[in-house]
Amino acid sequence: MIQIVTLTTDFGQADYDTGVLAGVIWQFAPQARIVHLSHDIHRHDVMEAALLLERCTPYFPSGTIHVVVVDPGVGTRRRAIAARLGNQLFVGPDNGLISLMQRRLLQENQRIEIVHLNRPRFWLPDVSNIFHGRDVFAAVGGHLAAGVPLHELGDPVDDPVLLQIPQPKPLERGWLGTVTHIDSFGNLSTNLTQEHLRDQGNVEVRLDDTRIFGLIRTFGEKLPGELAALIDSSGRLCVCVVNGSAAARLGSQVGDSIEVLFG
Amino acid sequence: MIQIVTLTTDFGQADYDTGVLAGVIWQFAPQARIVHLSHDIHRHDVMEAALLLERCTPYFPSGTIHVVVVDPGVGTRRRAIAARLGNQLFVGPDNGLISLMQRRLLQENQRIEIVHLNRPRFWLPDVSNIFHGRDVFAAVGGHLAAGVPLHELGDPVDDPVLLQIPQPKPLERGWLGTVTHIDSFGNLSTNLTQEHLRDQGNVEVRLDDTRIFGLIRTFGEKLPGELAALIDSSGRLCVCVVNGSAAARLGSQVGDSIEVLFG
Amino acid sequence: MIQIVTLTTDFGQADYDTGVLAGVIWQFAPQARIVHLSHDIHRHDVMEAALLLERCTPYFPSGTIHVVVVDPGVGTRRRAIAARLGNQLFVGPDNGLISLMQRRLLQENQRIEIVHLNRPRFWLPDVSNIFHGRDVFAAVGGHLAAGVPLHELGDPVDDPVLLQIPQPKPLERGWLGTVTHIDSFGNLSTNLTQEHLRDQGNVEVRLDDTRIFGLIRTFGEKLPGELAALIDSSGRLCVCVVNGSAAARLGSQVGDSIEVLFG
Repeated sequence: MIQIVTLTTDFGQADYDTGVLAGVIWQFAPQARIVHLSHDIHRHDVMEAALLLERCTPYFPSGTIHVVVVDPGVGTRRRAIAARLGNQLFVGPDNGLISLMQRRLLQENQRIEIVHLNRPRFWLPDVSNIFHGRDVFAAVGGHLAAGVPLHELGDPVDDPVLLQIPQPKPLERGWLGTVTHIDSFGNLSTNLTQEHLRDQGNVEVRLDDTRIFGLIRTFGEKLPGELAALIDSSGRLCVCVVNGSAAARLGSQVGDSIEVLFG
Repeated sequence: MIQIVTLTTDFGQADYDTGVLAGVIWQFAPQARIVHLSHDIHRHDVMEAALLLERCTPYFPSGTIHVVVVDPGVGTRRRAIAARLGNQLFVGPDNGLISLMQRRLLQENQRIEIVHLNRPRFWLPDVSNIFHGRDVFAAVGGHLAAGVPLHELGDPVDDPVLLQIPQPKPLERGWLGTVTHIDSFGNLSTNLTQEHLRDQGNVEVRLDDTRIFGLIRTFGEKLPGELAALIDSSGRLCVCVVNGSAAARLGSQVGDSIEVLFG
Repeated sequence: MIQIVTLTTDFGQADYDTGVLAGVIWQFAPQARIVHLSHDIHRHDVMEAALLLERCTPYFPSGTIHVVVVDPGVGTRRRAIAARLGNQLFVGPDNGLISLMQRRLLQENQRIEIVHLNRPRFWLPDVSNIFHGRDVFAAVGGHLAAGVPLHELGDPVDDPVLLQIPQPKPLERGWLGTVTHIDSFGNLSTNLTQEHLRDQGNVEVRLDDTRIFGLIRTFGEKLPGELAALIDSSGRLCVCVVNGSAAARLGSQVGDSIEVLFG
């Protein structure tokens, strides 16, 4: 059986401890396929990593193990967990990273199983206070990849830490949503999805005093520098400036309100 | 059989949708070996990616599949293609990415076979308007890695989009070439190769008012800060400043003329 | 048997010749698992790469091959070498990259075996003067991964180039050490380790006029912006500013003195 493991951290590219996670996994599961998913999560930005997991995990084969090290509480009493979330597996700190995946799976009535990583025999022999990514999470990921069942890794957890996730609110003729993420190009991603916009002809998008009329299907429909709204590749309403930065143009921040109104 | 797949995009390092390409490929070909070739192609720079492919593909094993997502026309009517170029395979948009590989193979009388990716059964079920890299190219790459023959993926194409590639012109006692690429160190790469310089003793290199006399074999022959010309690791004439930037020193740009003259 | 190969260079992320190393290795060993360890070693910083190897190699499975291309002398008469260092294998230039691994292994009475890469049949047929990473080191790494014994690759070497490594000096009631590395967050790593601090209660750390009293176990014990000393994840004394840069705060540089004094 071929086992796939992804690695996500907030370590950045310039320091070198991302590759060592692969070394530890291979100690236990030399046959594993390992891919770097992202090492550019903003430092300690648990929500950004949670959005990434929600967005990317559906594209990985059943049984893929996602090791996620965005861990501002490393060395404190925060729990370490592993989880089966539908057909994917997660290993990381218990700080809300799984919030968005969990919410979607609950909506779909899929299986969720979480354990507290409290059995040191599945960790490296020496555990640093500041690098559980290597000494706990990668080691546990390696044991999972080698076939250790989830429930053996620790005691069951039924109260994982979950992030407050802003929900769109219905308006008289539309929805009030929130900017949830701004990527490195300055595109604004929101919690409004294709569902909220289905079968609606005349759409107006409002951010403060800015009005955008209609959605485009692809960037090519607008000229460079023009502001536009579209459904992005993860099915979310997104506001962008073609070949530019909507965040810079509009001075937007994560948490800002955004409205869609139907004509 | 072991199948190797390389990934090249202009997504940059800071956003996270490069890893998801591997996930999609593994859905169809869990045994594939996947390597990131580059994600730092300048945004929409098809020529830069075409140069990379020409330069790197000869070093990969026969049968390697190169998935390339430099796709300014995504969502427009540009074709998606897959191709057998000699002993390598290519998947990506039909926008000239294969121009340089194709030219070399034609010179070598090697086989070229191109198909139009017009059969949705080889794509993901839902195709985003703005992320064909994931939904079309990675999926097709996965099917190729799983053993689907190229000709099944779509109808034959005999008129691929090809870039205008500047050709060196002979001069009375040398060659007139062009700067084709400037790397992140400011080294100037050109379309003049070892062929144009073979068996020539006294070489003079000219860019505008700048004269460089003789070629060095390796950077160590000059002092830091000195301007030099040499044959680079892909066999091309290259102008550099040791431990510095030739582009900054000379104000050079892609497309500039460069002459080599023999004494 | 599964063979693991790591790649470390000072090429940076923005140019694309890191992926080609994998291609060359796979030419000879298509079954190899390959991982990028780091491509962000500061240009020509052999000591930084030597520290990385000492720090990361213990976490890789026995038999892992580390191909390291930090090679300021490429094209000069510096030797190319391959080495067995305990249970790990190394391929790269003979410029001191193995210094720290070698020192630790000598202390542990482990086996060291070094050969001069002087047999061209294990290289690529055409060797560029400026890219031995691809044409010599990756090719040799591929042959090793394919099962060629180390001693066949070249003649034995018993005088590898070794870096001068500063050693801590005992003081009347403590140790005098050296800042050996500054990472991208501005954390100061030193040559003082857990050994030098064992069983010592009242510790005072001094850098010039700065005094730090006591060690913390994890960043969470201090407030953002506070200066602190701790044992880092590789067992070394490290000085940091929580969520900030100790190097910027203190104006520190590699080579600076640091004292630990016991009360």
